[in-house]
Amino acid sequence: MDITKIPHINEVSAFHGEYNPADCPVKSTERFDDRQKHSRKVLPSLEEAIRRSGLKDGMTISFHHHFRNGDFVVNMVVDQIAKMGIKNLTLAASSLTDCHWPLIEHIKNGVITHIETSGLRGKLAEAVSRGLMDFPIIFRSHGGRAAAIESGELHIDVAFLGAPSCDPYGNANGYNRDDENASCCGSLGYAMLDAQMADKCIIITDHLVNFPNAPFSIPESNVDYVVVVDNIGDPKGIMSGATRYTKNPKELLIAKTAAEVIEASGYFEDNFTMQMGSGGASLATARFLRDKMIAKDIKCRFALGGITGQIVQMHEEGLVKKILDVQSFDLIAANSLKNNRFHQQINASYYAGYLNGGAAVNQLDFVILSALEIDVNFNVNVMTGSDGVIRGAVGGHPDTAAGASLTVVTAPLLRGRIPTVCERVNTICTPGNTIDVLVTDQGVAVNPARPELREKLIAAGLPVTTIEKLKERAEKIVGKPEPIQYTDRIVGVLMYRNNTVIDVIRQIKED
Amino acid sequence: MDITKIPHINEVSAFHGEYNPADCPVKSTERFDDRQKHSRKVLPSLEEAIRRSGLKDGMTISFHHHFRNGDFVVNMVVDQIAKMGIKNLTLAASSLTDCHWPLIEHIKNGVITHIETSGLRGKLAEAVSRGLMDFPIIFRSHGGRAAAIESGELHIDVAFLGAPSCDPYGNANGYNRDDENASCCGSLGYAMLDAQMADKCIIITDHLVNFPNAPFSIPESNVDYVVVVDNIGDPKGIMSGATRYTKNPKELLIAKTAAEVIEASGYFEDNFTMQMGSGGASLATARFLRDKMIAKDIKCRFALGGITGQIVQMHEEGLVKKILDVQSFDLIAANSLKNNRFHQQINASYYAGYLNGGAAVNQLDFVILSALEIDVNFNVNVMTGSDGVIRGAVGGHPDTAAGASLTVVTAPLLRGRIPTVCERVNTICTPGNTIDVLVTDQGVAVNPARPELREKLIAAGLPVTTIEKLKERAEKIVGKPEPIQYTDRIVGVLMYRNNTVIDVIRQIKED
Repeated sequence: MDITKIPHINEVSAFHGEYNPADCPVKSTERFDDRQKHSRKVLPSLEEAIRRSGLKDGMTISFHHHFRNGDFVVNMVVDQIAKMGIKNLTLAASSLTDCHWPLIEHIKNGVITHIETSGLRGKLAEAVSRGLMDFPIIFRSHGGRAAAIESGELHIDVAFLGAPSCDPYGNANGYNRDDENASCCGSLGYAMLDAQMADKCIIITDHLVNFPNAPFSIPESNVDYVVVVDNIGDPKGIMSGATRYTKNPKELLIAKTAAEVIEASGYFEDNFTMQMGSGGASLATARFLRDKMIAKDIKCRFALGGITGQIVQMHEEGLVKKILDVQSFDLIAANSLKNNRFHQQINASYYAGYLNGGAAVNQLDFVILSALEIDVNFNVNVMTGSDGVIRGAVGGHPDTAAGASLTVVTAPLLRGRIPTVCERVNTICTPGNTIDVLVTDQGVAVNPARPELREKLIAAGLPVTTIEKLKERAEKIVGKPEPIQYTDRIVGVLMYRNNTVIDVIRQIKED
Repeated sequence: MDITKIPHINEVSAFHGEYNPADCPVKSTERFDDRQKHSRKVLPSLEEAIRRSGLKDGMTISFHHHFRNGDFVVNMVVDQIAKMGIKNLTLAASSLTDCHWPLIEHIKNGVITHIETSGLRGKLAEAVSRGLMDFPIIFRSHGGRAAAIESGELHIDVAFLGAPSCDPYGNANGYNRDDENASCCGSLGYAMLDAQMADKCIIITDHLVNFPNAPFSIPESNVDYVVVVDNIGDPKGIMSGATRYTKNPKELLIAKTAAEVIEASGYFEDNFTMQMGSGGASLATARFLRDKMIAKDIKCRFALGGITGQIVQMHEEGLVKKILDVQSFDLIAANSLKNNRFHQQINASYYAGYLNGGAAVNQLDFVILSALEIDVNFNVNVMTGSDGVIRGAVGGHPDTAAGASLTVVTAPLLRGRIPTVCERVNTICTPGNTIDVLVTDQGVAVNPARPELREKLIAAGLPVTTIEKLKERAEKIVGKPEPIQYTDRIVGVLMYRNNTVIDVIRQIKED
């Protein structure tokens, strides 16, 4: 056959030439049971995987945060990269927490020069706020990060993804089916997109299982290498303090009021849809809502988001029909994902991306969110503390606030001597036009853009006031706080979910 | 904030400017139950969906073939496109069958000028073989098509994907959970990648269900528009004649021999992995293997591929641990996908792509395949008949043959007066170096590249001969067939799974 004579072939299809048996890999004749034991994807060390990935100075590496404060992968990988002398990397994690303070050394040594993340806490956040890095950190919401990956704005060269189970060909899951005591983080929702879009994807696991590890969260077709290590994380770390059930009377009051606001809002009807946060007040709100659902004999069509054991309980009771889980907030949720067929894992784009065909946040009747600060224009800060230091995460806050029909922020009016309601938040993470109601222990404020909602809450006898009055009340008690002193230098850039700059964080001025 | 003063911002991230609330969509305040009833994705007509998709002359449209001969979508869509006066399109279907003969008119009228498919049958195939089209048809294997889509070689502008159920935001499935009598095709494995990679994705459904249609095959995040029509296909059509259980003594003999070959091959051990075809002999082979599994007390780790009710039965009996399903061959398989947790849907890339991180075909111990012709070099033709006319499909034939440790081709030595074993096949679809054994009703031939396998089969008392002897035997009975007369004109180009040209099909010479 003379392939140069095929008419139009170049016009019909890109053309790789004529088939040559010599170009095709020799087929394996081994039994699969033997073959999988020495899969070429499974490499003897992280070092070997990094070398094979082709990681070079200036590239971008990515990580997920499903182990939250129990994560061992980020430090392990960056340590190894540092040993290999690779520098000037962009570290793009879906989020970073307290446990990632060892990165400070790697930033000082020039291994990591840029960071993209949803959040930052602890010593690393403190150091960044005091000017550790030459380049500002880019903070993106979960939906904004997904969109940035999909658009190519955030191009991932090598993804290093911890997985509690993985087979020798890379099918990875956030749980184990053969060992109840092995590591576990549930949904790998924030890792799935990285696996799909990264040039090279390395799964780091502490539990190699037999093929096929199906159903899988991350498919083998997205995985280049697998590395087995002793321990990828502490499952207890996925339960942050924020997922405890509260006994705090102030939180319980807020929760009770929030549940009453939702009940009175008109959105609490059969087949409603919701997302609840993981804060103490959110968890308590869910419990109050559960009682109201039973009393009213209504069901929830689906619960979205970070999923807690409480949502799972409601699912198993038949009160919540389906669960869409981008992140499991505790081990009950993680195990439910493994066992409950209608507890469905979703990726970050499906959850909250704005560039795709449509995200689940847009299907929310209501969401309950928290705030470090909220100002008289309802702008919310979930990122910087009252001292101006970074200690939070954008997460899905702006995504769900924009998507839900009713966005409820719950917060105590005061935290110690610090007012939550203020004139202008330190850092705008979520714009006020997407927030509908603020519920505090001292009253409820409704966004003036929602007068019909305000009427409903007043009619239900709820303690409705205005956000200005809440601010005044707070200031009357604790006084107006001194403004935080910053230098001009920008240490963090807040991207809104459409990846435009919504605010910046400046270096705090030292005394 | 003056964003032009953020240092390094352009270097850190592509930069869309400052957040402007006016650029962001106004949030919906409707109850979701109402909102989903007038989702903006659900369009009133196919015409409107085509218009909104931006489809223009010269673009590429794609379809899946999960309804096989019961498909109504291809004809419906191309009729509508023709009415709208759009021309010069490339139709890239995962496969085409008998029922697509109305395309002949649209090819004559210039609506469709190029076709890419895995297969072609019936009147359309006949017309193509006789020179209907100016441009040759590109035939790709399922894995080759997946790779072409992933590499951008096959860029899909608009995917038109039929789905037996879909919610108003585009979450689509190949089955229904609320109506046993609604349309059903099971796995949407060949549609999933199209949905992911197409510029625009339109789901065509005859059953709009409540959100969220989860677990979903195609996620809403991949879907732009949803169109509801009366009927997308006839579920009975997914059962082609090729999935019947055989009573033909010749087929039974071949099946029994094939099962014995597998048993003797060394690959039939506990935790083996397999793919079976849908032909009568393959189905019968599965039944013989089932008996041998019970006798030997061994299990199959996973069954891959096109899945039949017979595999499902073995799964439900505990003989097959997991099922990886890219295509459901009958309604029992389709319903098992809905109900059995370890009956897992996979996409075409996961199944057989060669460009990705690794495909499931590479994890096969053995596969049983069919052949229209096989030559003395073990090259297989599954595409053209003894008259040179197109009447077949490449499917996953070359993909599984290359991936499996043991590739068994089953075929009768003669079909009527036509020998199956010949000097050189009309059309090479699968290269002989990837075929290990030919099982006929007149004996078994082992590829000389596998002498150890030949020894094993002889030791087991199987009727081992050589492929040359099988050819001689066939020719002794029916004589050597006259060579087919072709013109020089190329009407089809066969791409191997790595998308190089492995053969061409020429126009047949008319008397």
